[in-house]
Amino acid sequence: MFFNINKKLFSDGLNIVSKAVSLNSPLPVYHNIKLSVKDDYIQLTASDGDISIETIINKENDNLSINSTGDILLDGRYFSDMIRKVDSDTVDVEIIDGNLCSIRGSAVSFEITGVNAQEFPLIQFNKPDNYFSMNVNTLKDIILQTCFACSDKETKAILTGVNFSCVDNVLTTVATDSYRLAQKVIYLDESNNFNVTIPAKNLLDISKIMPSDGKVDIYVDDKKALFVFDNVLVQTRLIEGNYPQTSRLIPTSFISELTVDARDFLSALERASFIKNEGVNIVRLQLTEDNILLTCKSNEIISQEVIVPTSFTGEAIDISFKGNYVYDAIRALNTYEVKINLCGSMKPFTLVSTNSDQLLQLVLPIKTYN
Amino acid sequence: MFFNINKKLFSDGLNIVSKAVSLNSPLPVYHNIKLSVKDDYIQLTASDGDISIETIINKENDNLSINSTGDILLDGRYFSDMIRKVDSDTVDVEIIDGNLCSIRGSAVSFEITGVNAQEFPLIQFNKPDNYFSMNVNTLKDIILQTCFACSDKETKAILTGVNFSCVDNVLTTVATDSYRLAQKVIYLDESNNFNVTIPAKNLLDISKIMPSDGKVDIYVDDKKALFVFDNVLVQTRLIEGNYPQTSRLIPTSFISELTVDARDFLSALERASFIKNEGVNIVRLQLTEDNILLTCKSNEIISQEVIVPTSFTGEAIDISFKGNYVYDAIRALNTYEVKINLCGSMKPFTLVSTNSDQLLQLVLPIKTYN
Repeated sequence: MFFNINKKLFSDGLNIVSKAVSLNSPLPVYHNIKLSVKDDYIQLTASDGDISIETIINKENDNLSINSTGDILLDGRYFSDMIRKVDSDTVDVEIIDGNLCSIRGSAVSFEITGVNAQEFPLIQFNKPDNYFSMNVNTLKDIILQTCFACSDKETKAILTGVNFSCVDNVLTTVATDSYRLAQKVIYLDESNNFNVTIPAKNLLDISKIMPSDGKVDIYVDDKKALFVFDNVLVQTRLIEGNYPQTSRLIPTSFISELTVDARDFLSALERASFIKNEGVNIVRLQLTEDNILLTCKSNEIISQEVIVPTSFTGEAIDISFKGNYVYDAIRALNTYEVKINLCGSMKPFTLVSTNSDQLLQLVLPIKTYN
Repeated sequence: MFFNINKKLFSDGLNIVSKAVSLNSPLPVYHNIKLSVKDDYIQLTASDGDISIETIINKENDNLSINSTGDILLDGRYFSDMIRKVDSDTVDVEIIDGNLCSIRGSAVSFEITGVNAQEFPLIQFNKPDNYFSMNVNTLKDIILQTCFACSDKETKAILTGVNFSCVDNVLTTVATDSYRLAQKVIYLDESNNFNVTIPAKNLLDISKIMPSDGKVDIYVDDKKALFVFDNVLVQTRLIEGNYPQTSRLIPTSFISELTVDARDFLSALERASFIKNEGVNIVRLQLTEDNILLTCKSNEIISQEVIVPTSFTGEAIDISFKGNYVYDAIRALNTYEVKINLCGSMKPFTLVSTNSDQLLQLVLPIKTYN
């Protein structure tokens, strides 16, 4: 194996597959990136068994010249570091003896001992029949606006993922940790029918490596989801089990409705966020026709702030909740004005943008003894 | 106690004294800032027993209006947070009941329970007779260019400080962890005679709160050092014990002399810095008349780089050292060109700027088995 490649191009490819390199994996083979040099292209592959990524760098525009083909596994962390640290615009990569690989810039050179490529597990990137497409930015929005609401506790594994369920051309994505819920609905061009739960951690990795625009094709079956964009294939396992029926948790009629400027309300929540009891920032909202008060209390401190709403209609309510849950929900809505729909002081409430109903956030209140 | 003050002015004062608030102190009184409101000024004081800071905010330019005087201790962390979070340009601070303090902006208000001011230890900020002055930036340079070479191990307490010794008008500041040493010499306007060792940690705190220009007066006796600038007094304990005689460790004659571009050499060290054995990045420098090679080796990787010197004279040398020690030393020199003076492969070497001899850095080599 011997090739010369544009350093930036190669670094970009390595950064993409590096997301699947698992330095903590008990299987040392997963610490590696597989480098396969063919006649006309280079293939980079990495996997931690949970997520697998493959990208192709094609020979074009003098960016890549291949002298001889071959395969090797190289430690993912060190290999990326070395390429990034080379002191020239192009880099020579050569297997010089057995598994000893040389990486050369102009004054700088590195040598690293790799592993025989046959040690790498065989990963099938085959495409299931069921597939749909969307703009990469639509998928990034889904990930950004739902993943934060997933559980981080492995005890309820199914809640550590985002549920993608499609009936006809309506794709509903849901995340919940059972104390809050985020739901985004997207209309697809074609009808489809599936229900899969994808690990939030892997979705966040995918979000980081997607390009700034273009299309992503998503293939699903009952074992895996495969994301395809540019020259990249990303495959993730699904979380097994039935996702809870969340639609019945979402209230549809309300007794009170508060509309506030999103940025002002975020500022108020942020100001009070340092007041915690046992690590939890509990916010109390007292809504009456005359006055809306946001109060936080700890053993040492009380903070109080008068909220000026855009509008408030309905019954007076005194409700308490985790400040960061409502903060995260409003941030995810990414809107100028947020409508908070309330059903009662001990019932879940929803937060939506006043100019779109695609995204809904739901938060459960907290019982307090004021 | 009741006053109204410009929020920015008050925050700046609180930030200064906050450096002495010790949240980890086993004595709860040290978690507080002492707020003393007099007829014409406010005094803020904080201490952790090790470092004590006091600052005065005078009534001038409508920045401060005092309705009634008083004293109270308020939790340093929360009080600073509350003032910063107030939603207006000025803030009301009032003791409303016993030790209950109210902090009010426009829509936002806080209440916090303080502690009786008499609980605070009496701190004498008296000025010892022995004193000298310098520009604040000269002191910042001393701190920046020496403190990093101090030991962080409490086993040799004296080495966790920077030694300031003055004979006539020559002030020598030295830091060492016994593997490297930094020495900066300053010429004072007046003659003086003292030898004190100041904790590096406290010097770094002082460096952070000094203004961007002006003068600092430094008073020392055998118990403490007092730094005075603007309306701020900072007092630190000294480290007891005799500082080692470091001057005899510094070689004065050399067998080889290498001059290199500082930025290029830093880049080379940085490139090789990820190659570590048991967490240590060992750099080998092979100097011959024909060629200068910088090599790093771990179990998995070799990196090699050809160094192009500005000049090299003297005997060939093969020397190894901790990469980060030489990196830190060259960074501290803050120069375009660095001269490395060598005495032999197992002897300490010095690093100086080619255009100033005020600052000297010394590093001990490491024995390796290549």
